[in-house]
Amino acid sequence: MTTTLVTGIAELVTHDPTHGPGLGTVENAAIVVDDDAVLWTGPATSAPAADRRIDVAGRAVIPGFVDSHTHLVFAGDRAREFEARMTGERYDGGGIATTIAATRAADDARLMANGRRLLAELRAQGTTTVEIKSGYGLTVADEARLLRIARELTPETTFLGGHVVPPEFAADRAAYVELATGPMLDACAPHARWADVFCEPRSLAAFDGDESRTILEAAAHAGLELRVHAGQLGPGPGVALAVELGAASVDHCTFLTDDDVDALAAAARDSGPVATLLPGVEFSTRSPYPDARRLLDAGVTVALATDCNPGTCYSTSMPWCIALAVHEMGMTPAEALGAATLGGAQALRRPDVGHLRVGARPDLCVVDAPSYRHLAYRAGVPIARHWRSGQTSHEAPCPTCTRQ
Amino acid sequence: MTTTLVTGIAELVTHDPTHGPGLGTVENAAIVVDDDAVLWTGPATSAPAADRRIDVAGRAVIPGFVDSHTHLVFAGDRAREFEARMTGERYDGGGIATTIAATRAADDARLMANGRRLLAELRAQGTTTVEIKSGYGLTVADEARLLRIARELTPETTFLGGHVVPPEFAADRAAYVELATGPMLDACAPHARWADVFCEPRSLAAFDGDESRTILEAAAHAGLELRVHAGQLGPGPGVALAVELGAASVDHCTFLTDDDVDALAAAARDSGPVATLLPGVEFSTRSPYPDARRLLDAGVTVALATDCNPGTCYSTSMPWCIALAVHEMGMTPAEALGAATLGGAQALRRPDVGHLRVGARPDLCVVDAPSYRHLAYRAGVPIARHWRSGQTSHEAPCPTCTRQ
Ligand SMILES: [Zn+2]
Ligand SMILES: [Zn+2]
Repeated sequence: MTTTLVTGIAELVTHDPTHGPGLGTVENAAIVVDDDAVLWTGPATSAPAADRRIDVAGRAVIPGFVDSHTHLVFAGDRAREFEARMTGERYDGGGIATTIAATRAADDARLMANGRRLLAELRAQGTTTVEIKSGYGLTVADEARLLRIARELTPETTFLGGHVVPPEFAADRAAYVELATGPMLDACAPHARWADVFCEPRSLAAFDGDESRTILEAAAHAGLELRVHAGQLGPGPGVALAVELGAASVDHCTFLTDDDVDALAAAARDSGPVATLLPGVEFSTRSPYPDARRLLDAGVTVALATDCNPGTCYSTSMPWCIALAVHEMGMTPAEALGAATLGGAQALRRPDVGHLRVGARPDLCVVDAPSYRHLAYRAGVPIARHWRSGQTSHEAPCPTCTRQ
Repeated sequence: MTTTLVTGIAELVTHDPTHGPGLGTVENAAIVVDDDAVLWTGPATSAPAADRRIDVAGRAVIPGFVDSHTHLVFAGDRAREFEARMTGERYDGGGIATTIAATRAADDARLMANGRRLLAELRAQGTTTVEIKSGYGLTVADEARLLRIARELTPETTFLGGHVVPPEFAADRAAYVELATGPMLDACAPHARWADVFCEPRSLAAFDGDESRTILEAAAHAGLELRVHAGQLGPGPGVALAVELGAASVDHCTFLTDDDVDALAAAARDSGPVATLLPGVEFSTRSPYPDARRLLDAGVTVALATDCNPGTCYSTSMPWCIALAVHEMGMTPAEALGAATLGGAQALRRPDVGHLRVGARPDLCVVDAPSYRHLAYRAGVPIARHWRSGQTSHEAPCPTCTRQ
């Protein structure tokens, strides 16, 4: 297999403790990869030979981003609803029901094309591992086909039959939970690694603690690993449930009780759930941001993800999430980068990504700047690019033109 | 000259009142351009023939952005200072003095390369007209060479000798004002269209009302048109001065008095100064945002610009400014788009840009979405691209790869 030496790296972030504490950064660095793995990292002056050599001319190289929370398989958009929300206009376009109807009405080819478009966008901005949820089908057949499509885009697929109670079950929630834990789960489990549920207190939308427990326990019984949407709309039972059931991640964490933070901190000592923060949602819905500092200071592992979806955050940009984390949530640039790489990998239980230690997948992100700090410093500017093993330059083929 | 018909446009924003009120939007539209001008706009079904035809496949086309306030000619960066500000760390890296020292020390080639890099970034994100200020030289020779370099990048060059009092004049401000209104102005005027001053109350940094008046009157006497940085750090004399002296634009407007708003509103009826808001600065410095709604509701013309500079906002992204304007300043998506195009053009007194009426420069921006609303809806995602007359596709040559 061909090996490539990438050199001219002003700053290489490895998360390899042998290169020092913190991010495991090497200045004036080089990295050697083949198509399967990172083979070597260190100072450029001691780099071994390789079949091919690429010079990134003073740029930073970091691990590709791990976006551990997206909803990429859907049809339509909700630009009018967005506009109404921003301008305070009264508008009932139907919210999530609009997307459910559009998704059910779309054929596979259209859903796949939209998913591929968004995946290409994401990659063009430096993301190399992505999780994708179902949740806009909410019938047995539609949830299964969403997951089949998602599986063609990523191995990290999540069954989210527990997204909302679909309109046709509004009068009989119990019947929907029965469906989602019975025939729908049976149809979906073969295409999913994960199961997720949107858990909020009974007074709010989504599924309450008892319903969420029923859905998650059935999914675990079917062999799926667990993750939970919790604390987005208010403090609720989701965090405790995620800790109790050994979920890999609890996502949103916008509203947490003292007990929630204590439970996450205690569980963190025993590889408990990662707290996955989604600051694009708070930006897009003008909500208060989660208290990232409190979680970090308590020793909880934090991940950052986009939550890309057409309702509450239609962004594919991990660099923008990093900028929000630093500017709006008080995370340091180093913490935000860690959360967007290693944190996301931990939220997906993927030891092979999110870092550039020897043996890791060769998922490199080239930053068009001398330091990863520029991801937050240069907010809004697309300076992160995925470098694919096999590319003979850090610029070709152009990542933004690579439509699949 | 070759004419090009661009068709397949889901939504064309023209600012042409013959297409209706507001943004002059045409759905299912086409536009015909040559290298010099817009020749025709309207529904695709009645488009005239042209030498060449490009199909943008259901995307939106808008006027290229007009970024009427940048500081693109400098050397070095201030990533460490940024990090310290974000993390609350005590750090005196020297602030703007760092950039002044680095800029003075850099040769022309380095300054030009950095300016071209940033200009390419800006264009890749849909900006087609840009203003560039001096202000990091602050010696006669350095200010003149910054403006010579800027003039190679844009015709909209601004002499900003009145940026700050440079360190070597700290003990004798009057001597610096004398220099900036004498030999420095003489050396710079041939390379500049505009003059600007950073005007704040005497207690703050920058130049007070009397100093600012002296600098602006001398520049006007030398044939330069005027613009003013005012109200960034606190309410001050800058707005009144800008109105009195007939400046084209008063920039920042973060802190305004009631009298300032009244003066801008009264002057607006007689083509008084545009209020140019720079929300990236507020985001990057965690400051309160300007009250855009109050200005708009009072009838003041508002422009949006990046203020791209290495200290307080190192972003080249007009789409990101639009997203901030909508999410953080209560502007509607239509108002924000207008401010980023027509507003910027008015701030630069450029009737030929910022719109797509017949006769305008053929500066098109293709949005990778069916509506301009997605610029705010899809915050952080690089979906706007400059289309250059002569390009035979809306994707080739790749704008992000076009390094000059
Ligand atoms: Zn979600
Ligand atoms: Zn400025």
